[in-house]
Amino acid sequence: MKNFFQAHDATPTSLFVSLVFILVGVFSPALAQEPLASWNDTAAKNRIIDFVKKTTTAGGEGYVAPEDRIAVLDNDGTLWAEQPYYFQLGFMLDRVKTLAPQHPEWKTKEPFKSVLDGDLKNIAKSGEKGIIELGMATHAGMTTDQFSKIVTDWFATAKHPKTGKPYDQMTYVPMRELLDYLRENGFKPYIVSGGGVEFMRPMTEAMYGIPPEQVVGSTIATEYTIVGDVPVLRRLPKIDFIDDGPGKPSGINKFIGRRPIFVAGNSDGDYEMLRWVTAGKHPGFAMVIHHTDGDREYAYDRTSAFGKLDKVLNEAERRNWLVVDMKADWKKVFAFAQ
Amino acid sequence: MKNFFQAHDATPTSLFVSLVFILVGVFSPALAQEPLASWNDTAAKNRIIDFVKKTTTAGGEGYVAPEDRIAVLDNDGTLWAEQPYYFQLGFMLDRVKTLAPQHPEWKTKEPFKSVLDGDLKNIAKSGEKGIIELGMATHAGMTTDQFSKIVTDWFATAKHPKTGKPYDQMTYVPMRELLDYLRENGFKPYIVSGGGVEFMRPMTEAMYGIPPEQVVGSTIATEYTIVGDVPVLRRLPKIDFIDDGPGKPSGINKFIGRRPIFVAGNSDGDYEMLRWVTAGKHPGFAMVIHHTDGDREYAYDRTSAFGKLDKVLNEAERRNWLVVDMKADWKKVFAFAQ
Repeated sequence: MKNFFQAHDATPTSLFVSLVFILVGVFSPALAQEPLASWNDTAAKNRIIDFVKKTTTAGGEGYVAPEDRIAVLDNDGTLWAEQPYYFQLGFMLDRVKTLAPQHPEWKTKEPFKSVLDGDLKNIAKSGEKGIIELGMATHAGMTTDQFSKIVTDWFATAKHPKTGKPYDQMTYVPMRELLDYLRENGFKPYIVSGGGVEFMRPMTEAMYGIPPEQVVGSTIATEYTIVGDVPVLRRLPKIDFIDDGPGKPSGINKFIGRRPIFVAGNSDGDYEMLRWVTAGKHPGFAMVIHHTDGDREYAYDRTSAFGKLDKVLNEAERRNWLVVDMKADWKKVFAFAQ
Repeated sequence: MKNFFQAHDATPTSLFVSLVFILVGVFSPALAQEPLASWNDTAAKNRIIDFVKKTTTAGGEGYVAPEDRIAVLDNDGTLWAEQPYYFQLGFMLDRVKTLAPQHPEWKTKEPFKSVLDGDLKNIAKSGEKGIIELGMATHAGMTTDQFSKIVTDWFATAKHPKTGKPYDQMTYVPMRELLDYLRENGFKPYIVSGGGVEFMRPMTEAMYGIPPEQVVGSTIATEYTIVGDVPVLRRLPKIDFIDDGPGKPSGINKFIGRRPIFVAGNSDGDYEMLRWVTAGKHPGFAMVIHHTDGDREYAYDRTSAFGKLDKVLNEAERRNWLVVDMKADWKKVFAFAQ
């Protein structure tokens, strides 16, 4: 048997470091925290832990090699809130107001007029065509570097209309803990969202510890061009790929190139991704966030304008997809609301 | 000072393992190998090593954090050979022959007729349109899983027309060493190739240690559909994205989402990618493989039908791009030719 000094590299410095860790471990529960601390001790938490243990137990029947431990998670309504509207729409609305002085014609032209009038209902009436028009006016025409800065600057100042908090604080603590837990167990989490990939990438590292290359989303076309003697990528007002619904499995296949074994979503826009991940050679784990908590967050599902959850709820039980009841399964929702 | 037993975990098994490693280390230079062992001691090797040292020296002026150490490397003619024709064209030719019994009309229909007649010159005459037709007939219509198996099976049996070796042995040893060296120094290497992403992904892990999610390439559209009760992705005869020329910076931006600091290519199809990587906030390192060795490989550049290298050669010196002279800078080319 080894004693302490044999088992450790016993130079004075490393011994000191070891002792510090032991002392911190004893006196700071935070560092020795159980996984998923903000999850209640309900079946949901146990099912997640069971799955992770099964896939990481070497020699076990359900073992999955680390390189195949790909996890894909929707963003809006799964990792952060999506009410009263997708935050990227909030970005569009603010951006239209910022750009309005350069576009006097917007005062009378829809859907811009409704944005400037603050008439959300009328914007909704403009439908997909209107939203795309707003998207192109606010997301295209600049270089990729410029757009990244515009997004970063917006996040630094914009506030959520209900909570008054910066949007990057509207993330769900239990889901960030889940990301940590997955990573600690050798999983590689990707965001797979209908949102614009270049709207998310400037923020996902700080918000979730997810680097840009692990963000899959909708894209607009870019064009390589030379300005002066400097190459730039100009963002064109042209949709390249919509990463939603049946587009999500295509996006996963295109960007990642292997089938994930863990998926989380919260709407029918995730249905095909849920099916795809649970139909591979490894028994994939699927998780659906059900927004049941009108006090701490929002309560909505089958008839919501954003993030409708209907078909997925109908099929979840027979497909063995875990439905997370936000109110019952989560101890807390947002970090600022502790 | 530590003695051997203090410095090591001194159980009998680990002691045995340690001793084996020490003995192997003494008697097998391969395990204690210098980096880039198959590179001659020329300026090329030194420039690569200098760059890697500079970017990895903490506190140094040129230090780059590990997460930003993204490397992008072309595949055809950069990591493996591309003569007498792109190997993916070899796949198409073989595949047309395999499928011909199901397509009697191909006996009289171009460009299929020329493929079945083995008339390479006539195929070339059919131009881009003909090649795309061959591509769609051989790359689309099946599911993504089926295509992956077709590609894997082809690599298991097909042979290079000149060397008679399997195509996956046509990789350049010095470039595989370079990939190892970059990885050892915290770089994350991506393939960024004009080739089809799903033609490369089944093989890149075994050939280069590059996992599927680090392969960027041309894509065709896929469609999610249900067969029986099983979701599949069907490959459609429709080009989604061409990852070549100005498409390469767009592909890097779309798939990776950060600017690399190391790039390797070998043709004018890499020109825009070379420009893009060397125009970021970190001084990116660019490397161009010049095929100068007609004895060990092929000698070609400015007038080649495949992989023409002209504009890049003209600008390399003034842009400080390293031109690797295959004949002078590489000790060996292919592993089988030692």
